[in-house]
Amino acid sequence: MSNDNNNSRRKFIQQTSLASAGLVLAGPLQIFAQTNYNTMYKNIKARGYAGKDVAGKMVPWNFERRAVGDNDVLIEIKYSGICHSDIHTIKGHWGPQKYPQVPGHEIAGIVTAVGKNVTKFKVGDQAGVGCMVNSCMKCDSCKSGEEHHCETGGMVGTYGTPEASSPTGITQGGYANNIVVTEHFAIKIPKTIDLKYAAPLLCAGITTYSPMMKINFKKGDKIGVIGIGGLGHIAVKLAVSKGAEVYAFTTSPSKVNDIKSFGAKEVIVVKSATDLQPYKGKLDFMISTVPYAYEMSPYIDCVKKYGYFTQVGQPVNGELTINNFNMIFNRVNFNGSLIGGIPETQEVMDYCADHRIYPQIQVIKASEINDAWNKVVNKEARYRYVIDASTF
Amino acid sequence: MSNDNNNSRRKFIQQTSLASAGLVLAGPLQIFAQTNYNTMYKNIKARGYAGKDVAGKMVPWNFERRAVGDNDVLIEIKYSGICHSDIHTIKGHWGPQKYPQVPGHEIAGIVTAVGKNVTKFKVGDQAGVGCMVNSCMKCDSCKSGEEHHCETGGMVGTYGTPEASSPTGITQGGYANNIVVTEHFAIKIPKTIDLKYAAPLLCAGITTYSPMMKINFKKGDKIGVIGIGGLGHIAVKLAVSKGAEVYAFTTSPSKVNDIKSFGAKEVIVVKSATDLQPYKGKLDFMISTVPYAYEMSPYIDCVKKYGYFTQVGQPVNGELTINNFNMIFNRVNFNGSLIGGIPETQEVMDYCADHRIYPQIQVIKASEINDAWNKVVNKEARYRYVIDASTF
Ligand SMILES: [Zn+2]
Ligand SMILES: [Zn+2]
Ligand SMILES: [Zn+2]
Ligand SMILES: [Zn+2]
Repeated sequence: MSNDNNNSRRKFIQQTSLASAGLVLAGPLQIFAQTNYNTMYKNIKARGYAGKDVAGKMVPWNFERRAVGDNDVLIEIKYSGICHSDIHTIKGHWGPQKYPQVPGHEIAGIVTAVGKNVTKFKVGDQAGVGCMVNSCMKCDSCKSGEEHHCETGGMVGTYGTPEASSPTGITQGGYANNIVVTEHFAIKIPKTIDLKYAAPLLCAGITTYSPMMKINFKKGDKIGVIGIGGLGHIAVKLAVSKGAEVYAFTTSPSKVNDIKSFGAKEVIVVKSATDLQPYKGKLDFMISTVPYAYEMSPYIDCVKKYGYFTQVGQPVNGELTINNFNMIFNRVNFNGSLIGGIPETQEVMDYCADHRIYPQIQVIKASEINDAWNKVVNKEARYRYVIDASTF
Repeated sequence: MSNDNNNSRRKFIQQTSLASAGLVLAGPLQIFAQTNYNTMYKNIKARGYAGKDVAGKMVPWNFERRAVGDNDVLIEIKYSGICHSDIHTIKGHWGPQKYPQVPGHEIAGIVTAVGKNVTKFKVGDQAGVGCMVNSCMKCDSCKSGEEHHCETGGMVGTYGTPEASSPTGITQGGYANNIVVTEHFAIKIPKTIDLKYAAPLLCAGITTYSPMMKINFKKGDKIGVIGIGGLGHIAVKLAVSKGAEVYAFTTSPSKVNDIKSFGAKEVIVVKSATDLQPYKGKLDFMISTVPYAYEMSPYIDCVKKYGYFTQVGQPVNGELTINNFNMIFNRVNFNGSLIGGIPETQEVMDYCADHRIYPQIQVIKASEINDAWNKVVNKEARYRYVIDASTF
């Protein structure tokens, strides 16, 4: 054998073994690049920002992702949205956490490697990850596209969920430069939408879209949105685009003009429950994005008899007080809603790309995360912070 | 004119004036009886049991009803059921009250006088009164037979509601020997059902029937009933008779055999939330009659995704804690429900008469009311106390 032949054969073996290990790399040149070659065998190095304890200060952190498996894609993250849930989780408001933990479940980027069984993506595609990265895929809910309601308790959150395959023992989220995820749980992001707008759709978008679609509202129906922040402002835009007459309830007078520009028919600045009385029994549906306990009853009373009120904001410890005197008289159906399944997440992504529904964002650097978190808590976000992942 | 003629004329004038005053008396002989003659002009004397203050001790009390108006019927009460709401109300658990107050909203008796415009009843008919005695009759809810959801706030409760026409300033309920009520708010009680069984249907019956009918359940659907007391045991019987597979949840082991005899498929004696886990996500619908705050979430979790959970029991101050973490995962619709409208109350009365669905009752004397109240609070009722109104 000549050297050339030897080289060719080594190349062939490499390609074969790469293929059998289930990894197609980003490009033909990269097949010899040691760093990429190792993605199939070795953990992926990642840089991000993590919370180290319940104090919730976010600091730079180097960590590892699992190696890219046969059904996995590796995504180079371009943008990552900041959700109020990130703050609640890291600060332990929803229960004790493992640290260090990288939050972030509004993840948009470019596929840079795919496992051998992957069919949904090829290297170079735009892809996103939302609030979950796995589920049992065998139960009725999973099989019907409601993976977030996995009946075996098998739903794996994008961050903070114990996961054997994760080198850190828990899933680590999107405040980082890359992520490895089973292809099923990655969302295709059309080329027609910029990644920085796509990111917030993966939590804020689907979380508000899903319960609104469930009620099958008709054009002209009156939809109330409570809390006009990251989730709420997208809810307004989505409801408006679907033909609803939108009533936006906010405690921030400074948001009124913005909210009108999103298409709301009326913006109600709520100082006390009396401000809600003119709307009693008037709305077909209400969605509340308020992520803290609040006096719900006067809001629920705004919904028509037999209508629905969906609480998507999650208060500290999840506890809300409901007054059953109001409930027996208003006869409203109260429910909670958690994101949506993968097919519906794809649906809202495609819908927003097609209809040019873009969240109103502020792009920040990684070093600005702590400041941004404070602003989110203080209701100063206008309306979604998105981290430029090149700054991690 | 002869004396006879004079007598005839006086008789004629009396009849005419009675008619124009809108009152048809119980029988031709009674037309000369001064006490009955006065019913059209004068207040009706009544004897009952009232609470005098928040301590909730019930004592005999003589009081007056309004005179029988053109659209009113006078009912001689034969039986009056004891509802847990009576206790809550008189003890001020649901807000401050006016005293003396006669509770009781499960009222069954015989019509003894009717106003001139009355067409639904004639003297001698069996009639009942439930939880309301008036409403605006002009709003959409009233016009569509949901008087309990009167949109003008015009619904008048059977006891304790301010009412100009009532000599005591508030409505007075059924722990008494008679009641005067607008005919629309009186329910026809078929001859085929004994009045003592009819009484509890006017609150316990309709309160559980209405939300169960709203869900349009199919034969074989799994319905859970929480709290098997006065309301719960009727809920079990009604659901069984409509073809549901009934799961009864009780904290009283001594009730198990009774509840099985009511037709429940399974009786679950709940000592802690772990006893509920086998039922997680298994039931199509649940109704809770528990009249106190309790840990609702593990019960709500028993309902299938997108199913309904109705709370009809009213806790002190109405306040219930709902955990939105459970709600976003169980995806159950929570609602409250208050009785039913007059047409639906008539429907459940007729249905129970036709299908021989009778509450399991214990008939007591008026002097036993305080003892019975204690037993209701201590879950010792089996299952509805009904007061023999001849003992007032
Ligand atoms: Zn989120
Ligand atoms: Zn599953
Ligand atoms: Zn009652
Ligand atoms: Zn009305």
